[in-house]
Amino acid sequence: MTEKQEVADAGWRDYGEPQLPAPLAAALAAFAEQGYHGTSVRDIAARANLSVPGLYHHYPSKQSLLQGLLEMTMTDLLARSERAVAAAGNAPVERFGAVVECLLRFHMYRREQAFIGSTEIRSLDDSYRAAYIAHRDRQQRMVDEIIEAGMAEGDFTTAYPKDAGRAVTTMCVSVSTWYKPSGPLDADELVKRYLQIARDAVGYRGA
Amino acid sequence: MTEKQEVADAGWRDYGEPQLPAPLAAALAAFAEQGYHGTSVRDIAARANLSVPGLYHHYPSKQSLLQGLLEMTMTDLLARSERAVAAAGNAPVERFGAVVECLLRFHMYRREQAFIGSTEIRSLDDSYRAAYIAHRDRQQRMVDEIIEAGMAEGDFTTAYPKDAGRAVTTMCVSVSTWYKPSGPLDADELVKRYLQIARDAVGYRGA
Repeated sequence: MTEKQEVADAGWRDYGEPQLPAPLAAALAAFAEQGYHGTSVRDIAARANLSVPGLYHHYPSKQSLLQGLLEMTMTDLLARSERAVAAAGNAPVERFGAVVECLLRFHMYRREQAFIGSTEIRSLDDSYRAAYIAHRDRQQRMVDEIIEAGMAEGDFTTAYPKDAGRAVTTMCVSVSTWYKPSGPLDADELVKRYLQIARDAVGYRGA
Repeated sequence: MTEKQEVADAGWRDYGEPQLPAPLAAALAAFAEQGYHGTSVRDIAARANLSVPGLYHHYPSKQSLLQGLLEMTMTDLLARSERAVAAAGNAPVERFGAVVECLLRFHMYRREQAFIGSTEIRSLDDSYRAAYIAHRDRQQRMVDEIIEAGMAEGDFTTAYPKDAGRAVTTMCVSVSTWYKPSGPLDADELVKRYLQIARDAVGYRGA
């Protein structure tokens, strides 16, 4: 790996604990346990060791906590995906591997955020819901464009590139519903296996 | 199709409105909108046009409504899957096609139930949670055993049959998160495309 690649590569595979502001971390834990509608601002303040007015000082409503949380989640996923794809170079097969691996790792290490992202779209105010869906569409478009480039190069041969792109994204996203970091399946091994399955799903006819 | 096949086949592809008892239909609508913890028994009684004591007469708790709903959902999915596979005959490729099509149709036509099934496992009492997970495991085992049989016959060639089985199931389940029956993609066309992608994902090397 050259020095330049290392810089571009920096960090998209690194996951420690999520670096969320205390109110958002508290909101995440509460929403994951009880759902948005089952959670009160008082619950969140108590979990964050803040008074209700202290919490409102930073986040004026429960809705702003949900939006703040989902915005940070999607921004993180998109930024990691873009870094992963940029570091992979120009070959569609490599770019595909990068975006799939990035989706997989994110959904292994950010399971709670992913869960809120897929379950509480119903609870978003209309104004922000459109912005959130635009983020998700951007992520899907990244996958779709790489598959299209791979079709153009003759690397991928599926008859249904757009459907395969959605199928691949959803199978990566679904990892968040069953993967346990403490379980028997090592993260790198999961990436290796799912990457093969994802390549098969787009009809990869390479080496 | 012979008469015998028609009998075995009966109904697994047929979906009208879900035939739920009024309290469960009301619980489904409320949970889908507000989540289990955000819903009160009073909400459900009002939606079902019942008094709270009237509702309790049939379902003694909010938990029993959730359990009743998920039990009917999984029983329906399992029964349809078994009928679909039985009607498909002995060839693993046909059986695989049947179970994939059944998963797809269920998750197109029973989106709300599927949503509650994947989001409110957290809200189940421990005793029933184990039974529910056993149902899901049984569904996954059906897929896994068909893939194993197809590997043994040389129809499927994936290096990772068990992981491919999970990937295929989750990509079918995820259809519930985005499919719109009123949208541009016809149900039969979706089945055709996803079936091809699912075959590719297990390394089908057939005609």
